[in-house]
Amino acid sequence: MAGFDLEHYLVHCRDLTNKALDDALYPGGDGDPGRLREGMRYAVLNGGKRMRPVVTIATCEACGGTPQQALPGCCSLEMVHAYSLVHDDLPAMDDDSERRGKPTVHVAFGEGPAILIGDALLTRAFEVLATGEAAYGPVLAQAVVILAREAGIDGMVGGQALDMQHGQGITELGVLEQVHARKTGALYAAGGAMGALLAGAEPKTVEAMRTWGLKFGIAFQHADDVLDDDQVALRPQALARVDELVAECNALAEPFGDKAAALHALAGWVQKRAHTAAAGDLAQD
Amino acid sequence: MAGFDLEHYLVHCRDLTNKALDDALYPGGDGDPGRLREGMRYAVLNGGKRMRPVVTIATCEACGGTPQQALPGCCSLEMVHAYSLVHDDLPAMDDDSERRGKPTVHVAFGEGPAILIGDALLTRAFEVLATGEAAYGPVLAQAVVILAREAGIDGMVGGQALDMQHGQGITELGVLEQVHARKTGALYAAGGAMGALLAGAEPKTVEAMRTWGLKFGIAFQHADDVLDDDQVALRPQALARVDELVAECNALAEPFGDKAAALHALAGWVQKRAHTAAAGDLAQD
Repeated sequence: MAGFDLEHYLVHCRDLTNKALDDALYPGGDGDPGRLREGMRYAVLNGGKRMRPVVTIATCEACGGTPQQALPGCCSLEMVHAYSLVHDDLPAMDDDSERRGKPTVHVAFGEGPAILIGDALLTRAFEVLATGEAAYGPVLAQAVVILAREAGIDGMVGGQALDMQHGQGITELGVLEQVHARKTGALYAAGGAMGALLAGAEPKTVEAMRTWGLKFGIAFQHADDVLDDDQVALRPQALARVDELVAECNALAEPFGDKAAALHALAGWVQKRAHTAAAGDLAQD
Repeated sequence: MAGFDLEHYLVHCRDLTNKALDDALYPGGDGDPGRLREGMRYAVLNGGKRMRPVVTIATCEACGGTPQQALPGCCSLEMVHAYSLVHDDLPAMDDDSERRGKPTVHVAFGEGPAILIGDALLTRAFEVLATGEAAYGPVLAQAVVILAREAGIDGMVGGQALDMQHGQGITELGVLEQVHARKTGALYAAGGAMGALLAGAEPKTVEAMRTWGLKFGIAFQHADDVLDDDQVALRPQALARVDELVAECNALAEPFGDKAAALHALAGWVQKRAHTAAAGDLAQD
């Protein structure tokens, strides 16, 4: 969409989400055994881009809702995303000691507390999402089901297991996309579906926005792969797949007219990111 | 309550819960990367007593509901309880290699998978609880909030952190009870509140049943302590406290008349258990 200021939109969504997360996370200090509250804040309030909330707000607006309506979905998604990183970084998993230039949670707080901090974040995510039933009515229980399904064994957790099973040796784009769809795409799918649901959309529209989020999430991850030297063999195929997925996203957003300006801008941004990376890479050759 | 067949009631509640859990957990086999589905079943379908579901069904019946109505609460509680044991048994936490005579989940499935199996169970708990909104209406979102609150930082996870902080050296009954209230009592409180909520009870009644569950859970844990040689110094105080808590439980159940027969029987059973243990112990001296 010509004239849509995506840069400003991203900052706006990020600021709204950060404020809501700050409110939703407990302060640390006295009465914080094991420093769990402090650890929850450390894990979540980390300068992230908040792309999942951006998708949630954008689909909510496409369906006629406001950014405020989308916030329970935004906060719950970021807490789930943050818990998954805390657990993935553990010695028994990826054993990472640094994230965004800071010590990972188990390095800063200890391994036992890191397990509990992740558990507490996952639990708090559902509490935050389901609170406010007076304002939203029965859709909140549906939102919980959506988030749980996409975050669980058939979504993100299952994707993590699939990734562990394959290790570093994925050489087929189809297999890579299966991992992306579950490990990354699932939470974007949840964002799309929850954004629509919290705007009061019909089930058919919720499902369309779920698909938009899923395809966007996979495209986003493929675009990252284009930048990743480990996946150099799959680069041309990944680039072609980004183009396809972006076209499918745009077709899904089409019926929503001008209200879907942010959705079109986000899809265009991922496509441009992938092509710019590929061009830069060619220039380096 | 004279004439109430508690033994039969416990078996009936356990069978109902086991059947519902078996239906709610995914079969393993093909398409089970990392054996997560198999591990979820291994962790949950373990021959447990299902005391939390018993409390949930008993409060549901006290409020005029049926055992069937309580089942989403029963399944979600057992999944949360099971996930907490899987994570507590990890090397970074209590480092236990055996539970109920079988290898713990991380021993049987690996440490990374055990973290994910716990995460998947916690996530599935909320999905199971929030599914079926058509039959229950908006109370399901409230049930999610209750479970998340009792299972999270101000409940079970916080109790675990408190326990880690104190280690083995608790010498005051008041401190011990704080740990029991959060680490054990919180899930019983959730069972009491959810049982009432799923029966369609008023907020005041839900709160009363929450308190019943909390007091019952603490009494249950104190009764266990009476049997535990590590807590021998606190034994007489713990026994006196069981009597107080049971009296408070019975007072809370009183207004529900005959519908609270199971609640009275359960409280009486815990009291008898504690006193029998204490008498056995005296006999050994």
